[in-house]
Amino acid sequence: MKAFEFLDKVGKVDTNTMVLDKAMGYKTVEDMLTITAEYFNLAKYGWGTSMLVDEDIIKDKNELYHSYDIKTYPGGTLFELANREDKIDEYFQQLDKLGFNAVEISDGSTVIDADRRADAISKAKEVGLYTLTEVGKKNPQKDKEYSEDMRIELINTDIQNGADMVIVEGRESGKNIGIYDGSGNIKADTLTKLYENTPREKIMWEAPQKNQQVELILTLGNDINLGNINTNDIISLETLRRGLRGDTLGKV
Amino acid sequence: MKAFEFLDKVGKVDTNTMVLDKAMGYKTVEDMLTITAEYFNLAKYGWGTSMLVDEDIIKDKNELYHSYDIKTYPGGTLFELANREDKIDEYFQQLDKLGFNAVEISDGSTVIDADRRADAISKAKEVGLYTLTEVGKKNPQKDKEYSEDMRIELINTDIQNGADMVIVEGRESGKNIGIYDGSGNIKADTLTKLYENTPREKIMWEAPQKNQQVELILTLGNDINLGNINTNDIISLETLRRGLRGDTLGKV
Amino acid sequence: MKAFEFLDKVGKVDTNTMVLDKAMGYKTVEDMLTITAEYFNLAKYGWGTSMLVDEDIIKDKNELYHSYDIKTYPGGTLFELANREDKIDEYFQQLDKLGFNAVEISDGSTVIDADRRADAISKAKEVGLYTLTEVGKKNPQKDKEYSEDMRIELINTDIQNGADMVIVEGRESGKNIGIYDGSGNIKADTLTKLYENTPREKIMWEAPQKNQQVELILTLGNDINLGNINTNDIISLETLRRGLRGDTLGKV
Repeated sequence: MKAFEFLDKVGKVDTNTMVLDKAMGYKTVEDMLTITAEYFNLAKYGWGTSMLVDEDIIKDKNELYHSYDIKTYPGGTLFELANREDKIDEYFQQLDKLGFNAVEISDGSTVIDADRRADAISKAKEVGLYTLTEVGKKNPQKDKEYSEDMRIELINTDIQNGADMVIVEGRESGKNIGIYDGSGNIKADTLTKLYENTPREKIMWEAPQKNQQVELILTLGNDINLGNINTNDIISLETLRRGLRGDTLGKV
Repeated sequence: MKAFEFLDKVGKVDTNTMVLDKAMGYKTVEDMLTITAEYFNLAKYGWGTSMLVDEDIIKDKNELYHSYDIKTYPGGTLFELANREDKIDEYFQQLDKLGFNAVEISDGSTVIDADRRADAISKAKEVGLYTLTEVGKKNPQKDKEYSEDMRIELINTDIQNGADMVIVEGRESGKNIGIYDGSGNIKADTLTKLYENTPREKIMWEAPQKNQQVELILTLGNDINLGNINTNDIISLETLRRGLRGDTLGKV
Repeated sequence: MKAFEFLDKVGKVDTNTMVLDKAMGYKTVEDMLTITAEYFNLAKYGWGTSMLVDEDIIKDKNELYHSYDIKTYPGGTLFELANREDKIDEYFQQLDKLGFNAVEISDGSTVIDADRRADAISKAKEVGLYTLTEVGKKNPQKDKEYSEDMRIELINTDIQNGADMVIVEGRESGKNIGIYDGSGNIKADTLTKLYENTPREKIMWEAPQKNQQVELILTLGNDINLGNINTNDIISLETLRRGLRGDTLGKV
């Protein structure tokens, strides 16, 4: 039973929350989950960190997360490495062997042509993986070459091709990329245009900073999908979604 | 026995230090306390996070902190929710049931009239809770409507009404609120006026950032009460208080 | 066996990485090392934090780190305190008693004359400690009084006197000191001059921020020695060194 049940509160929100695990130890994750597990449903092992961790630890962590119904997947950088080497099939097999049940298909640091991207989404779905794609370039200069219309088209194409969720890139920093300016503030016009021309339930906004989470919740609703949440901020985000922190109290 | 006892050092300081626990797991707290427990005496479970945690975990964490003589209380946001629903008595009962031994009375996100605030302080004292109040608004625009004179009067009124400690709001960020400007730097004139017109031993300055801790210690003394300290920075703060870090070495 | 072995990758780099331990609990370190241990070889217990920790915990943590071939030493602030009291010999004895196997000799917060500094380096080497020295002042105003030529001379003198490694001061913040401007950006001219006039394998650059790590790796090579790495960022740094993160993918 939760504490302070006698107080009215906004109920649990039906949403998607993706947490960034930067290669935490098993016991640290285990203790963290005793409090946070019910408040997120996706754990991403950031970028290529999984390549530096022993298989057994990866498998054990995957089992642990899955025991709480949290899906796991490695950062899209690993998909990019596999694609570059023409080893997408091996990559999906390896995910299965290690016990991952989701995958991210992206081209944040490399280039992939549209057909190949569509094909990768299809294959991922075929082998039963929950399939996320990502739109945006990790390099700010390259990211700026994407117009809003291009982003919208990429998002909607991925969805048509079968992606379960499309991530709008925000990186670990949340600065100078996608909907964020160099200070991490939201570019309102870009946000509006993207939001109004894509299906909200299939878009996940990477929002590592608290001010970004607050503004997205107040602008788009408390059930908006949010990602790249720091493990220390999972409960904080849930309080924001449910009006239990000053920033959103009485406003959600 | 502490390490490096043969070196001269500034002795342990008689002060109050409040740490912000953003809903850490039991085992993480347990391990953290093996090193930090003697260097703080108040743990705040930030804002409304306690409502999202199981009662049993809250109770166990309270016992753990109390075993080291560290008082515990939920963030003032929960008091505000209870007050809004006219359930202050139930709130105090719930605190007792969950094993909290302190309470924060505040109006950072809502409004409470002066009589009711005074009454809440009295009731909290009657039921034996260590009673902190807080002065400041979580919304920067609203916070700016408070003149320095108003802040001073609010602080001194709370103390006259029986508060054990009055917190000067700084939030988790330490920016754009109370004595801090938008970059987290201290507004020297505001600090001086507040400090000179209130009883120093009953005021706790929220100071989440290191530069704020350094400046407050160098300006007001190493025994100044400080709050909203990050769990990773407890030992760092104690080294600042005792001249064991470059910033205050030879100056305290 | 590491995960995703079938993917090509940049091999393990022969380098030095120093991690900043700000007084973490034993079990937290133990869990962290299950994943990170092979990716750093030096752990610094920051500034004077060791004086606030029980001897037994210090000894146990030292044994734990050493079991993974990671050298340990207290921050240079403790050496400065010992030097100020003319207790350098006692200091080296204490390090031995507590099980440290490295030492940092610095004058970041105090003044030490050149002969005494040289003598301390000799003594440290004699008693078998891995000997690091540090160049730079913790106070930004004082640090600015050091010209580039002075820094270069100090570094090379320490090396001639037997130092195993010379640290270029960056502090925990990485701002407004040494090669960094007030925003934490690298001053390219200063970096170039220091780099070109000192032996790269004996210099360790303190680089707490990710953008600093990226730029140093891209400018000076992926095997450049880096220090003051946050415990949460050890794996991230290793992915940067090995092209497993967008910032350096295909560039190292």
